[in-house]
Amino acid sequence: MKVQRVDMFVCPSANPADTSGLQALADAGKIKPGTLVALVGKTDGTGFHDDWGRIWADAALREWTAKFLGVPKDDVAKHVIFVLSGGCPGVITPHIAAVTREWVEDGKPSREKRLAVGRAGSESIAPEEVGRMGMIRKVASATQDAMKDAGITDPEDVHLVMVKVPGLTVASIDDAESRGHTVVSHDLTFGPEGAGSYANDGAALGVAMALGEVPESKLSDEVVRRDWDLYSEVAMTSSGGEKRHGEVVVFGNSMASVSQLVIGHSITTDFIDAQGVRNALRSAGLKFNDGLPDQEDLDRLVHVFAKSVIPGSDVVRGNHITLLDDHNAYQIGKALGGMLVASVTGRTTNYVSGGERNSHQGPPGGNIVAAVVRADT
Amino acid sequence: MKVQRVDMFVCPSANPADTSGLQALADAGKIKPGTLVALVGKTDGTGFHDDWGRIWADAALREWTAKFLGVPKDDVAKHVIFVLSGGCPGVITPHIAAVTREWVEDGKPSREKRLAVGRAGSESIAPEEVGRMGMIRKVASATQDAMKDAGITDPEDVHLVMVKVPGLTVASIDDAESRGHTVVSHDLTFGPEGAGSYANDGAALGVAMALGEVPESKLSDEVVRRDWDLYSEVAMTSSGGEKRHGEVVVFGNSMASVSQLVIGHSITTDFIDAQGVRNALRSAGLKFNDGLPDQEDLDRLVHVFAKSVIPGSDVVRGNHITLLDDHNAYQIGKALGGMLVASVTGRTTNYVSGGERNSHQGPPGGNIVAAVVRADT
Amino acid sequence: MKVQRVDMFVCPSANPADTSGLQALADAGKIKPGTLVALVGKTDGTGFHDDWGRIWADAALREWTAKFLGVPKDDVAKHVIFVLSGGCPGVITPHIAAVTREWVEDGKPSREKRLAVGRAGSESIAPEEVGRMGMIRKVASATQDAMKDAGITDPEDVHLVMVKVPGLTVASIDDAESRGHTVVSHDLTFGPEGAGSYANDGAALGVAMALGEVPESKLSDEVVRRDWDLYSEVAMTSSGGEKRHGEVVVFGNSMASVSQLVIGHSITTDFIDAQGVRNALRSAGLKFNDGLPDQEDLDRLVHVFAKSVIPGSDVVRGNHITLLDDHNAYQIGKALGGMLVASVTGRTTNYVSGGERNSHQGPPGGNIVAAVVRADT
Amino acid sequence: MKVQRVDMFVCPSANPADTSGLQALADAGKIKPGTLVALVGKTDGTGFHDDWGRIWADAALREWTAKFLGVPKDDVAKHVIFVLSGGCPGVITPHIAAVTREWVEDGKPSREKRLAVGRAGSESIAPEEVGRMGMIRKVASATQDAMKDAGITDPEDVHLVMVKVPGLTVASIDDAESRGHTVVSHDLTFGPEGAGSYANDGAALGVAMALGEVPESKLSDEVVRRDWDLYSEVAMTSSGGEKRHGEVVVFGNSMASVSQLVIGHSITTDFIDAQGVRNALRSAGLKFNDGLPDQEDLDRLVHVFAKSVIPGSDVVRGNHITLLDDHNAYQIGKALGGMLVASVTGRTTNYVSGGERNSHQGPPGGNIVAAVVRADT
Repeated sequence: MKVQRVDMFVCPSANPADTSGLQALADAGKIKPGTLVALVGKTDGTGFHDDWGRIWADAALREWTAKFLGVPKDDVAKHVIFVLSGGCPGVITPHIAAVTREWVEDGKPSREKRLAVGRAGSESIAPEEVGRMGMIRKVASATQDAMKDAGITDPEDVHLVMVKVPGLTVASIDDAESRGHTVVSHDLTFGPEGAGSYANDGAALGVAMALGEVPESKLSDEVVRRDWDLYSEVAMTSSGGEKRHGEVVVFGNSMASVSQLVIGHSITTDFIDAQGVRNALRSAGLKFNDGLPDQEDLDRLVHVFAKSVIPGSDVVRGNHITLLDDHNAYQIGKALGGMLVASVTGRTTNYVSGGERNSHQGPPGGNIVAAVVRADT
Repeated sequence: MKVQRVDMFVCPSANPADTSGLQALADAGKIKPGTLVALVGKTDGTGFHDDWGRIWADAALREWTAKFLGVPKDDVAKHVIFVLSGGCPGVITPHIAAVTREWVEDGKPSREKRLAVGRAGSESIAPEEVGRMGMIRKVASATQDAMKDAGITDPEDVHLVMVKVPGLTVASIDDAESRGHTVVSHDLTFGPEGAGSYANDGAALGVAMALGEVPESKLSDEVVRRDWDLYSEVAMTSSGGEKRHGEVVVFGNSMASVSQLVIGHSITTDFIDAQGVRNALRSAGLKFNDGLPDQEDLDRLVHVFAKSVIPGSDVVRGNHITLLDDHNAYQIGKALGGMLVASVTGRTTNYVSGGERNSHQGPPGGNIVAAVVRADT
Repeated sequence: MKVQRVDMFVCPSANPADTSGLQALADAGKIKPGTLVALVGKTDGTGFHDDWGRIWADAALREWTAKFLGVPKDDVAKHVIFVLSGGCPGVITPHIAAVTREWVEDGKPSREKRLAVGRAGSESIAPEEVGRMGMIRKVASATQDAMKDAGITDPEDVHLVMVKVPGLTVASIDDAESRGHTVVSHDLTFGPEGAGSYANDGAALGVAMALGEVPESKLSDEVVRRDWDLYSEVAMTSSGGEKRHGEVVVFGNSMASVSQLVIGHSITTDFIDAQGVRNALRSAGLKFNDGLPDQEDLDRLVHVFAKSVIPGSDVVRGNHITLLDDHNAYQIGKALGGMLVASVTGRTTNYVSGGERNSHQGPPGGNIVAAVVRADT
Repeated sequence: MKVQRVDMFVCPSANPADTSGLQALADAGKIKPGTLVALVGKTDGTGFHDDWGRIWADAALREWTAKFLGVPKDDVAKHVIFVLSGGCPGVITPHIAAVTREWVEDGKPSREKRLAVGRAGSESIAPEEVGRMGMIRKVASATQDAMKDAGITDPEDVHLVMVKVPGLTVASIDDAESRGHTVVSHDLTFGPEGAGSYANDGAALGVAMALGEVPESKLSDEVVRRDWDLYSEVAMTSSGGEKRHGEVVVFGNSMASVSQLVIGHSITTDFIDAQGVRNALRSAGLKFNDGLPDQEDLDRLVHVFAKSVIPGSDVVRGNHITLLDDHNAYQIGKALGGMLVASVTGRTTNYVSGGERNSHQGPPGGNIVAAVVRADT
């Protein structure tokens, strides 16, 4: 029986075009053209629309990966999924996490579930489906395909699902409307009624549906960005106008993996809930007291993935905060998530994305935290 | 023997001009014209130069206090010290803490040291003394006077010293230069070489000298904003061009107090050091495990005062952060301190000021945290 | 026959609460309790949601006006219309323009049309009408009432219509939906699909309908913020959640006025069209060559009112600009309008509001400019 | 006799890495490896410290130029001078202007002076000389060398001098201090007392000295960033920590040029002085009335180079502006200069740099504008 061996390597980036960490991994044989499945990173810059750091990082990483794989630049996406989240305000160190998967013949059954990764593409998603049931169902289906690819059958074993879906553009709206369809929004931003937010949240509800976190019967076009009690605890989603179908990467634990790594997750219940971050680390197998993992724990902690969506309410534990009225809420909201995680992990190389207001990625007011840990053997 | 009874009340503010919390305290007899000694607060707004929230708050509070005391508005400062810190980014709730001190005849000796407060004004500080030994010595002297007023003799019993000193202005620089003197800087900002930063740091070193944290022999004009190993663990300072002399408020514990409150403090050793915040709470007498005070602890926690000065280095525990290159570093730096404290205290009504880069208020890269707790009786 | 005498006085504000300019006008008898009809101003601050400068200015001006009129603060709005636009980025001097109207018996017919002002309130506007035909029709009707009040019959004589209408709030949306209605948007911002933008633009189309700039036959719910070719050249509108009905102030020229002032207007055809500003000054009667009014012209120029709505397109005269992707577009867009006007008027006390993207206030890509001039007699 | 033929081509950039405009010029034979002398551009992005757009543009342009010249990337600077100014807020289109110079044998004497370009490097500038007389004298000397290279003898014929000089770094300050020297500032920013500002202004005074705009007798270490009445009308300077010596490019008119282009310049006398921009265009030979060049004029206008330094005073023509207290003053100040120029040139592809407060580049409160025009033959 073939089982997978998944590994994950975190490389800090000195600048957006810095591929030296990946090159060192390649030189050391830790990542190989046949094993590299995903690059997930935080890129240096503001995270705003005109953040060229993210664009430059994407160009430089894609060029490096094309050379590494020996394929044309345009074919890189067929082999390696890129999830680059722009903006490292505060205590978030720019970095790239390389995820590898190798298939090995293994006579011995695993004694415990270990990190497994699966990928799948969705059917093509039409502009009129963005942020609506069409997208939700197609992402749900792709999520199930990715679980299969990962060798995971129990949704409880899934701890992180990264999804990229199509957003809307002027052109795709024209296309839909010329065919007699409506679209979910004409606002092309990631604002509260923006198409980008609807796309991300449609994808999140797709994951929630696939994993049974939300029953299909409760889902409809009307609940998207309205009924915040429907959410996934493991979906981190993004969208882009250039995409035509969804891409899903599932991270979970499986008996059919001989990885040295284990993944776990938890949620924060509000914006200042450090306990939620600790719960995530413990879910992945770290044991520690008094709030902070010790050095031995940290040596085992490989990486943390967290969202930092801004709450829709301006009240935190009974007191008013002014974040929702802050012109810099997007950046500050993301920075605060970075601090919440770093204050527990004791390190700054955490993947923290967010800044948008309200989401079906995590519970109302709270956020998702997943942790990858080296198994305690 | 007369001993003091000090109390502290924290009122969230719905807007900068909101005095309803103070009025409720007055109506309930908790603060009286003769007992109110200080108003210390965070005001709603950006915290930038053009943050009218702070100015409006100052105007509204001063007007309320004048009526409350029955004195002209311009005389309020003689009776009640105002420390209003502008800017509540992120998870810092705008609020005002009212500090009262009553002198009571008390035959019974205290069984343990309790919160005491003392105030003193410094000699007039000339513009050529700002940020230099002249200011340092005068603040040191006033700090010792304030300790006396507080009934504290051992510097170890001092846990928080709030100081306001004169800054430089175009006019005061002209004055100094017309008399043949130089000034520490022509930069009127709070930037790295700004007169505002020099004034604040001169005041901090004055406190450090008074408390013996830094021996006078190590102090000179040249060390201010150069030798960061010289610092106070308890000084929180600010400066303004309109002032002519320094004002000092000392918070500490004393046997000559029958307050129900106790104060303690600690420092963070770097920008993500949640343990430092926990240490401060424990220093004041809270006992808790696993990182977070429980509800019983929180019921006893009256208030936390913390600085969030941005580190001078762009490396935190070995990894690069980009905060120093961020246009919004001032605001984000303050917000991050707010999150670090709130993630431990489990509440957002914490006094957190800062955002400037580097300071003699706290150790290099770290910050000061003081906590006031209701005694465990 | 009673005719009006309208005057306008521009007072720079040293800070948001500065009423000294108004007091000086009152002391000099230039404004009287019975003649003051409107205060229109730009307030010091950022112009963002958390800009307390605007709120403080409103509170201070309302308090001053209440005392001046001898009425309770809550009744001020019945007598004097306040239009306070927050945010003075760049070269916009914070200021208040006081508008007075006196009715005088005048036997002599005017030889030429002079500045007239009229006001009217609309019928109550329900939340489900905001940004839709309901609002458009009610504002149109109120605009006609205000024209009557101004003694203006020909729409060509109307050069500026300032309108304030209800926006949407969480509460008013709930109200509409509980009664089985939909609302135009759940986005409570002034973003591209925000309820605030829909409210402002519904009001602008109401003015356009009243003045015949857009025929009623072309108007429907569907065209609001969709068909940018429908617009008013004279409507400057704003909205607030606290309002229940619309308020309209019409400025135009009338034979039934003996004012010394004349108003004119023009539009800019794109974002850098200084010629449009010059056209506005000339429309009001200034004559000048080589781009700039000379000192004699300027002595006659009383005030300029301009919008600075950001174009929906990122192309200006064939070249790409990056403003639409700029996080600070709102503030920079307003500042640019301020510069465009000031570079022609040679002064910085111009009323320039804007920063939002796209509007029915002015043509696509361009903006409205109105000028008030002392008649050349 | 060999004379120069100078040309200038302005290419809008679709993104920071866009070299398609240059490639098209190369393909058309308009720029050749032997003739390209400078690339001067505005790059897409915020213009802040963490603006990766400028860094990416520099990398991409340097790579393109290396290939074009057939030299290693590190040698590009020996052949082509790069002046890339980051930040295109408002109505500044990102673009690159390519400057070419060809030496031709020309029997016929020119009938009039035409555009000439000259370059020179300065002697090595030590860190202790930055922003002081050492730098001033070395830049002055290099400016005279560059004039010689341009074939210009009369300073009146010089209309633009672009200079890049060394700034200070932590390392270079250590170096200077270890050798017993002081440095002009420990503030590494471009703030009012920042080393970057001192370096830029030292360079500007060097140009002023070379051209006789300021007599050497008035220059001393003490006047830099103190005596604003000393300034150049043609110096546009920048600085970088990586440089060891200064680079100077002089643009002027010379009889020894057969270029079809002519350069002229003027200054604005304050921040809203559109007349100053018009004067610059006219200085270069455009003739136009009523403020705006007509299409025929614009067809001849090749490029405009302008500074937009923020005034040190908050009063413009007698009225208070709030720009100096604005957190975004740097970006808004630059944007305002872009508008002032574009409102006259009727185009957005103008080179406008600035945003810093106060400078010896241009008069107090005003700025430098240079224009290159195709000769009217």
